Amino acid sequence: MKKIEHIGIAVKNLEASNNLYSKLFGELPYKTEAVESEHVNTSFFKVGDNKIELLEATSKDSAIARFIDKNGEGIHHIAFDVEDIEAEIIRLKNEGFRIINEVPKRGADNKLVAFLHPKSTNGVLIELCQEIK
Amino acid sequence: MKKIEHIGIAVKNLEASNNLYSKLFGELPYKTEAVESEHVNTSFFKVGDNKIELLEATSKDSAIARFIDKNGEGIHHIAFDVEDIEAEIIRLKNEGFRIINEVPKRGADNKLVAFLHPKSTNGVLIELCQEIK
Repeated sequence: MKKIEHIGIAVKNLEASNNLYSKLFGELPYKTEAVESEHVNTSFFKVGDNKIELLEATSKDSAIARFIDKNGEGIHHIAFDVEDIEAEIIRLKNEGFRIINEVPKRGADNKLVAFLHPKSTNGVLIELCQEIK
Repeated sequence: MKKIEHIGIAVKNLEASNNLYSKLFGELPYKTEAVESEHVNTSFFKVGDNKIELLEATSKDSAIARFIDKNGEGIHHIAFDVEDIEAEIIRLKNEGFRIINEVPKRGADNKLVAFLHPKSTNGVLIELCQEIK
């Protein structure tokens, strides 16, 4: 785990939340990106060396839609930057963590990503991500 | 907002969670601290330039105990490092955010802290913190 790459926040309305978080951070999101495979629209803010990702569902089949139905808006996941995602998946599996994506998938922001199941991490949805070079 | 100072995670049993997160990060917490005014025991892990804070309630009057009763274990708050907490409270109040602590209070890890109400931040409990010099 090199650092916190980003914190993902589930929101109902990306435009309204972009406006709100622009006030909070004093600057606009530096990019927005639709991730069709995940049925989400995303936006990214820089805060120091980290990012905040806002996620809005584009379909009721999206994990973000289901999360908001159950919990309301709020923090959805923490993503950690790793050097070698496949090695990290093997290491964590051997340590007893439940891996949702044993084969990393393509996520937003040019990353390979894999999630750990919150049941094995005190209720925290953890994403591992590695930049695609 | 200079950077993400830490992410706070509410846990039921600090010893068990220290063990779990030590496996996740591949290293032990660098410190533990009891914050009696908040009825919590805390531990801190370093991840790059950020920290992860685990919080265990020591009393059922603790905000952490109430959070776990309602939501189960999980991410409790995001803390952002600020240069001048009093100026930031005034700026955010003027932007329409609801400030829980208009006068900053003393938190863990030698910090002055103030929280924003999650009703004004898409369900995210945000802590501002400034190091006490």
